[in-house]
Amino acid sequence: MDQPATPTVLLSDPMLAPFEAALRAEGWRIARAWELAEAERGRVRAIVHAGDILLPTEALERLPDLGLIACVGAGYDGVDVPWCRARGIEVTNAAGLNAADVADHAIGLMLAGWRNILAGDRMIREGRWRENHRRSASASLTGRRFGVVGLGPIGEASARRAAAFDLEVAWWGPRPKPAAPWPRMAGLIELAAWSDILLVASRANAENRGMISREVIEAVGPAGMIVNVARGSLVDEDALITALRDGRLGHAGLDVFAEEPTAAERWRDVPNLVMTPHSGSTTREILPRLAERVMENLRLFFAGRPVATPVSSEA
Amino acid sequence: MDQPATPTVLLSDPMLAPFEAALRAEGWRIARAWELAEAERGRVRAIVHAGDILLPTEALERLPDLGLIACVGAGYDGVDVPWCRARGIEVTNAAGLNAADVADHAIGLMLAGWRNILAGDRMIREGRWRENHRRSASASLTGRRFGVVGLGPIGEASARRAAAFDLEVAWWGPRPKPAAPWPRMAGLIELAAWSDILLVASRANAENRGMISREVIEAVGPAGMIVNVARGSLVDEDALITALRDGRLGHAGLDVFAEEPTAAERWRDVPNLVMTPHSGSTTREILPRLAERVMENLRLFFAGRPVATPVSSEA
Repeated sequence: MDQPATPTVLLSDPMLAPFEAALRAEGWRIARAWELAEAERGRVRAIVHAGDILLPTEALERLPDLGLIACVGAGYDGVDVPWCRARGIEVTNAAGLNAADVADHAIGLMLAGWRNILAGDRMIREGRWRENHRRSASASLTGRRFGVVGLGPIGEASARRAAAFDLEVAWWGPRPKPAAPWPRMAGLIELAAWSDILLVASRANAENRGMISREVIEAVGPAGMIVNVARGSLVDEDALITALRDGRLGHAGLDVFAEEPTAAERWRDVPNLVMTPHSGSTTREILPRLAERVMENLRLFFAGRPVATPVSSEA
Repeated sequence: MDQPATPTVLLSDPMLAPFEAALRAEGWRIARAWELAEAERGRVRAIVHAGDILLPTEALERLPDLGLIACVGAGYDGVDVPWCRARGIEVTNAAGLNAADVADHAIGLMLAGWRNILAGDRMIREGRWRENHRRSASASLTGRRFGVVGLGPIGEASARRAAAFDLEVAWWGPRPKPAAPWPRMAGLIELAAWSDILLVASRANAENRGMISREVIEAVGPAGMIVNVARGSLVDEDALITALRDGRLGHAGLDVFAEEPTAAERWRDVPNLVMTPHSGSTTREILPRLAERVMENLRLFFAGRPVATPVSSEA
């Protein structure tokens, strides 16, 4: 093995600074993309990366010794995987590791919206609970239809939870999955029209940008709800906001946004909406496990061995 | 059958005014407790009642022809059932009918609190989402312990949902249930000490007032959560507030309160708390079904036949 004695690992974003201690403990050199000296570029052999942040190929071209991009979470939509592989750069991620946490969060957003939990909390805190409000009704969930867009690990974990609420489950995704225990609808628009709650759980890529279009949103309809725990890019966010304002969509629960952090004023007076700051996947327990997955891939790579979790080729 | 041609039904609370149309459609006379004329008392044969509101026996004593108290929901803690039965007054309720809705709500309160959904929504709306908050972590639910106090229809439906989140389930209640699929702990304090999330789902009665005591609350502890969808009277609410303020209890989710409506200022600055205005059981779909159950019991009673759903004697 002819790698240099001290490999250099580049952190692509200040958010990844917590990795520094672990990298240092391995004896590796650390470089930071936000303060990268020209002389350091030639030494970078691996990048630790938050997969949804855009990693431009022009920037990668200036790292001649790069061999691995280790994405911290499940997503890698900011990385041009075919471009990397054509140049011998491996890309790893942590698919499935955070599926349970994200699915818990998805069901939490659904219940918080559908059962008016946020609105109820606000009513009490603002002193607006009067006796005649006491029986303020929301819709029941029982017997509703739960449609999953993208039946990966997160979609499956969410569907399994939804089934325990006596929700009927169906799904759609670009590839059939004969082993799936729930029916696959003919297309996205058919799934949306069928669904009371439409969960967006797809991997984002160049092809599915904006696929939750105005037409799909209106097919879910005035009594329906859209929950997005995948990526903001999948949804036509302007159309979603308009539909919520006009009552052509009943509820939305969003953990992800077209731009993150999203601006407060964009959502001012948008009704029937529950939002969280991309926190579905980031529980205290999962963060060390995601970090360990990254470290494992780095160690294997620097040892000249195959990485543990290359991103799936069926991206 | 010697009942008078036009039976009189008393509504015990203004909240029950929506029943008037259905009662009138049956050809029955309506009396209202909040404007009851002395002369009407002798005619009242049945009461439609919101079971958690106190119905004093002194008031019942002044209704000499009373034969039925039909409670609208599952609860009947405001009714002295042994006193009534000793005087030949039947009491009915709608046990089980709203169990799925209340269980959905219970899991919604758990997720909203545990996964910081309300705090996340507030962060975005107040413009406090900064890049470094993006990965703001909550605790993971996976593998946690879900303890159910009171394994009636609501407790069971909640436990079944919790199991789909890969939560470990145990319960405690005053009577063993050999058919229950989850272990019964030796006592309430043992269950509380074992639990990460303690769900209060007991029927309230004179014996269990305040049973979620300071000791029980502290056994759930700084990393734990208490969810109450049963009755406010079951919890020492002052001890709960103190424990949340002092960090000796991690989170609480409350749909019911010692006094309802509860006052906003009572909860001001109480941290890690999600509240709803007793809305767990009152979905739009369940209200007509609860009403139909009441009407059915009234019709049977006025026809001199046994009522459909007398309250369980194992109260």
